[in-house]
Amino acid sequence: MVEECRIALVGTKFMGRAHANAWSQAPRFFPSTLRPKLEVVVGRDREALETFAANWGAARSETRWRRAVQDAAVDLVDLCTPNNLHAEPAIAALEAGKHVACEKPLARDLDEARAMMKAAKKARKSRTFVWFNYRRCPAVGLAHQLVQEGRLGRIYHARARYLQSWGGPDTPLLWRFKKRHAGSGAHGDLNAHIVDLCRFITGEEITEIHGAISRTFIKERVDVATGRKGRADVDDAVLFLATLQGGGTASFEATRVAHGHLNRNVIEINGEKGSLRWDFEDLNVLEYLDAADGPRVGGWRRIVCTSAGNHPYVHAWWPDAHMLGYEHGFVNMAADILRVLAGERPELPLPDFADAYRTQRVLEAAMISAKERCAVRLSAVK
Amino acid sequence: MVEECRIALVGTKFMGRAHANAWSQAPRFFPSTLRPKLEVVVGRDREALETFAANWGAARSETRWRRAVQDAAVDLVDLCTPNNLHAEPAIAALEAGKHVACEKPLARDLDEARAMMKAAKKARKSRTFVWFNYRRCPAVGLAHQLVQEGRLGRIYHARARYLQSWGGPDTPLLWRFKKRHAGSGAHGDLNAHIVDLCRFITGEEITEIHGAISRTFIKERVDVATGRKGRADVDDAVLFLATLQGGGTASFEATRVAHGHLNRNVIEINGEKGSLRWDFEDLNVLEYLDAADGPRVGGWRRIVCTSAGNHPYVHAWWPDAHMLGYEHGFVNMAADILRVLAGERPELPLPDFADAYRTQRVLEAAMISAKERCAVRLSAVK
Amino acid sequence: MVEECRIALVGTKFMGRAHANAWSQAPRFFPSTLRPKLEVVVGRDREALETFAANWGAARSETRWRRAVQDAAVDLVDLCTPNNLHAEPAIAALEAGKHVACEKPLARDLDEARAMMKAAKKARKSRTFVWFNYRRCPAVGLAHQLVQEGRLGRIYHARARYLQSWGGPDTPLLWRFKKRHAGSGAHGDLNAHIVDLCRFITGEEITEIHGAISRTFIKERVDVATGRKGRADVDDAVLFLATLQGGGTASFEATRVAHGHLNRNVIEINGEKGSLRWDFEDLNVLEYLDAADGPRVGGWRRIVCTSAGNHPYVHAWWPDAHMLGYEHGFVNMAADILRVLAGERPELPLPDFADAYRTQRVLEAAMISAKERCAVRLSAVK
Amino acid sequence: MVEECRIALVGTKFMGRAHANAWSQAPRFFPSTLRPKLEVVVGRDREALETFAANWGAARSETRWRRAVQDAAVDLVDLCTPNNLHAEPAIAALEAGKHVACEKPLARDLDEARAMMKAAKKARKSRTFVWFNYRRCPAVGLAHQLVQEGRLGRIYHARARYLQSWGGPDTPLLWRFKKRHAGSGAHGDLNAHIVDLCRFITGEEITEIHGAISRTFIKERVDVATGRKGRADVDDAVLFLATLQGGGTASFEATRVAHGHLNRNVIEINGEKGSLRWDFEDLNVLEYLDAADGPRVGGWRRIVCTSAGNHPYVHAWWPDAHMLGYEHGFVNMAADILRVLAGERPELPLPDFADAYRTQRVLEAAMISAKERCAVRLSAVK
Repeated sequence: MVEECRIALVGTKFMGRAHANAWSQAPRFFPSTLRPKLEVVVGRDREALETFAANWGAARSETRWRRAVQDAAVDLVDLCTPNNLHAEPAIAALEAGKHVACEKPLARDLDEARAMMKAAKKARKSRTFVWFNYRRCPAVGLAHQLVQEGRLGRIYHARARYLQSWGGPDTPLLWRFKKRHAGSGAHGDLNAHIVDLCRFITGEEITEIHGAISRTFIKERVDVATGRKGRADVDDAVLFLATLQGGGTASFEATRVAHGHLNRNVIEINGEKGSLRWDFEDLNVLEYLDAADGPRVGGWRRIVCTSAGNHPYVHAWWPDAHMLGYEHGFVNMAADILRVLAGERPELPLPDFADAYRTQRVLEAAMISAKERCAVRLSAVK
Repeated sequence: MVEECRIALVGTKFMGRAHANAWSQAPRFFPSTLRPKLEVVVGRDREALETFAANWGAARSETRWRRAVQDAAVDLVDLCTPNNLHAEPAIAALEAGKHVACEKPLARDLDEARAMMKAAKKARKSRTFVWFNYRRCPAVGLAHQLVQEGRLGRIYHARARYLQSWGGPDTPLLWRFKKRHAGSGAHGDLNAHIVDLCRFITGEEITEIHGAISRTFIKERVDVATGRKGRADVDDAVLFLATLQGGGTASFEATRVAHGHLNRNVIEINGEKGSLRWDFEDLNVLEYLDAADGPRVGGWRRIVCTSAGNHPYVHAWWPDAHMLGYEHGFVNMAADILRVLAGERPELPLPDFADAYRTQRVLEAAMISAKERCAVRLSAVK
Repeated sequence: MVEECRIALVGTKFMGRAHANAWSQAPRFFPSTLRPKLEVVVGRDREALETFAANWGAARSETRWRRAVQDAAVDLVDLCTPNNLHAEPAIAALEAGKHVACEKPLARDLDEARAMMKAAKKARKSRTFVWFNYRRCPAVGLAHQLVQEGRLGRIYHARARYLQSWGGPDTPLLWRFKKRHAGSGAHGDLNAHIVDLCRFITGEEITEIHGAISRTFIKERVDVATGRKGRADVDDAVLFLATLQGGGTASFEATRVAHGHLNRNVIEINGEKGSLRWDFEDLNVLEYLDAADGPRVGGWRRIVCTSAGNHPYVHAWWPDAHMLGYEHGFVNMAADILRVLAGERPELPLPDFADAYRTQRVLEAAMISAKERCAVRLSAVK
Repeated sequence: MVEECRIALVGTKFMGRAHANAWSQAPRFFPSTLRPKLEVVVGRDREALETFAANWGAARSETRWRRAVQDAAVDLVDLCTPNNLHAEPAIAALEAGKHVACEKPLARDLDEARAMMKAAKKARKSRTFVWFNYRRCPAVGLAHQLVQEGRLGRIYHARARYLQSWGGPDTPLLWRFKKRHAGSGAHGDLNAHIVDLCRFITGEEITEIHGAISRTFIKERVDVATGRKGRADVDDAVLFLATLQGGGTASFEATRVAHGHLNRNVIEINGEKGSLRWDFEDLNVLEYLDAADGPRVGGWRRIVCTSAGNHPYVHAWWPDAHMLGYEHGFVNMAADILRVLAGERPELPLPDFADAYRTQRVLEAAMISAKERCAVRLSAVK
């Protein structure tokens, strides 16, 4: 018998829509014993909230998140809110015995993240999830599998960048530029993703930060509400160098001011036996270099990861070779969350609060390194 | 007030799913005065049909298409059936006063297509649509607009190919390899798409075929039902050369046996002032060469067509730079059909039966050219 | 002991320089028993000729080609002249017992080509060569080898294009636009190359032309000498479709008016077991799809053909991974000519007049097909 | 009147050949008032030396470099020796009043480099040059010019990598793996190039290193001479982060163990108004993003830098669109050196010892940062 998973969706902007769509599409494409139901959606703007609820078929709407996360008719709290509204609702939900799925980055800072991680540990019956959606692109899933199969051997290098270009001087003072709301700028927004990807694909933890740069190029931006300039107190770009537990090097760069890159989330791994490369701007493709092919006929293989029988999640969608897009990562993840809550195995490992906390520690160590102008061992970061 | 458009969806396989998803997603992403409702779904396998109906929220299901297309509670008949089930249901639906949306190619042959076109003409209150879905990729829409704006000037060359690789000797004798069901092979399946794209983007009709090759490389395939070999009597590949009404040349190639190409629907246009290039395997991108950029700093521009404010249909989806996939073309088209039925303008021109008939005439002329081994003027093809 | 091969170089423009450089570089990079010596260079402009001779270390210069090709001190006549000066000097040289290396296309038309081929046959001690230089790019050589090794199996499709963009309306009436000098336009200049490449790589002859378009978009051009407009009586573009002897299809397109393509000489072969693709604008790379890699980890391999131990001709140049350019094809070919004249085997097969005549027949058949508007069997072309 | 520049070429291996070819080709393609003459070549292996001298037309050969650099018949000493043979011969040559052209990196360490820089300063009549050959690729020259023209505006990011793959565990203990001969590994060999490129293209100096990693993955390699394992005491990879004088960030990575990268020398610059990207594996191309093109029709422009009238050095070579290769950078540089010695302006700025010393300081600072595990201001590096 199919049971229901009743969801409180908190947040109705970009991420709210992406999640609502994921919960709506998941059961249509992934048969499951657990069926998601949008029980209640939470937002602040009453009118927008009604429209949202109607559009996505939510049973009820609510302007106070606290009531929603404690609602007896809710099984899972899904947080799509800005970073300053992750820790408090998540902990409250856990204390109320709910499962929690939280947008990334886990929190504004490591203190918040630690509190969340501890709350998750304490809430033994609750499962937690963090929406590192890029893990669910089939090409990324294949990369993870190929490393696990030993196809790269010892890892020498990971090289990750997340480059965007929307943050030039003309962009106004959005919440994403304010520390109080966002915690950080490109760092938490983008480096969080690529640190997670690096850990997910290589299966290795980061043990040391060797240096970092955090830079704010545009220090004042127009506040649209007031028409006056206000201070942008988060980074526009953060770069850092790291060591993986197996001794390989890793480099990370996140920026919002790199013209020509819209959503250039790209990661490359070089190992003893081969290399892998993925770029979200060509998301269905994984490039693979198998050193065993030799110099005569070897070269980067451009694998189009759209084969139902061969690449994760594709079986659920269209016949071979019909491209997927951004939103499918969310749908695939929603399907995996439902599987886990139904006691089944997810198609690929899902990050929980403890896992995301490890990513957050890396971000924190990088910030310390940038500030202190020295190397930082992860073991020294509590 | 939002009214309903009650739909009879005929066909529940790959295309049935793609259309059901389109009708389901369209109202969520495109606000409209007309709301689609899956009134009835039609299929032959009762059990599969029930599952499909439940999955997509269809009000009813039906195994006899004739009843569905004449159903008083139906406004629009959507045909997702194999090519041998286009003409008869479409004409019946038109005679019953329904709007009809039909999968491509319009028909198995020109006689059927002509009958459909005439029935559409006669049914004055009915609107017809043909699912040339690739027109609705934002990058293709932009190509259409740039040509319309005169950015290419006089067109010298159109070069279109639709290459696939699934049809090798090991592929069994599917309906797609039988003339009775499919009418033709790669020709109707793939050349139909690229002839439509060429006409849509250039805005020019084809006036002459200068030569064609139709080839069946694998003449026998295993019939899975019987385990014995049966005759594959359609083409594996068709190539032809043509003249556009403005004097430019056009070349077309469709094949199912080109290793390395999964869904390589690619078209390039070279004009007096510039060039355009689109490839479905990188569907969000349009390449554009503006000759005015000059040799020093000019070059193919890789336009990522994901800008909400600048590229067709993107406003409905995600923020800038979040890639779309295959299925979005269908959703965008469903939204446009609803707009038209609501008396509004579609975001980009929609092909009706008369338009698709012109594409079918080109396909027919190519077949004649291949058979007769000579050039064929379109004016000579009735 | 190293002997000398004394060369009469006829023509001192672009091709004259390319060949002079080839004869100059060949002995420096390819050790050989036969050493080239520029014995005499032939040109019409006395002053330019002297400069050229001095620059390239020619022993003598000469304004009358007839004297040079009959000069007792000459072993090899190298023709770098416009197409109207191929047949007569080549035949005279052969009659004088010289070896002849002739630029492509072999001749302006099939009658001239046949006469040259017959003269070559008659001159039993002479060797002939035609400068289809692209055969000597290492990536093309590898393609030839891979097909020979059977890695593609049965060939389904060859797809060749040679697209340029320099021939727009503003380009003056050069000799290349006059039939009397050039014989044809893009056809002889560019299709000659890709027909040769197709034959070289696949190892198959063309047996039939199924249709062709020859088009002159710009019918009048400014004659720089007079400042007045004159008639351009050659094609700007020629396209044709063909059958290979093994039953595969082949398509060819040559044009001078395709913006965005400077020297886009590109060929792709699809076979039963894999595919190959080469593009001169990325000349060091061969793309290879090995179907045996399967859908999970297979994809186009981007082979960088710069491995001294693995790719033809590379051993003579720089260490692995140091890119070669356009001119190296000529040097490699000069080295192979010297090898052949020294009684050794060339690194890759060299085209002689008989071979180039077969290419010219294909061009002729395409012209007939375009004119007669029908298919043409090669067996019908004398 | 054309005068001679008599050259002593020290070193006859890979670099010796590249330089000999450059001196041989330069006068053929670049008319100049100064003509290079290979007066003497210096090597240790007498037999190989004779062959080399004969091949390249050297007047004399010599096994003792000291005699050659003091030879009265020599104007310019060209050093193509391993890094441990840069400082001493260069200083001796300067003291003997010669011009000196030295391979990169300038020296094994900063002490040597400083001594060379001082010797150059002292030798007032001598000119010095360092063979940072990649500056002379036309696409790199164009990048330099576009930044100088202000097309990028304020520079936010430089991102440079030089990735190779030849240094796996099976590669023997060449001189390049020994500190005594090479000074460092990938760092001096590869980072030297990209630090120079970054400085050349951006026109900005590096002011601070924020962190660095130096790693030796393979600590022992087989010594081919003895057949036994010996210690590899240089880095296999070095990464570091830096600040440019204008406040932008810069990241560098050099490695010899990145499968899939043969000679991946790649640099990207992101500025306020646009971006540039160059990759040696596609050396004729510069990618350019002009933000002024806007999101609708803007995108990375793939500029093929082969236009004689528009891109540096191309005028000397072949007609438009005929690709150049690796060796042309050396020929272009040789031509520029001759221009400078003739009192003319080089086509693009040439690096001298003082300039290369600034690059060497950056490398030194990175090594300090890696060792000390802290940030290092360039002003603190003497």
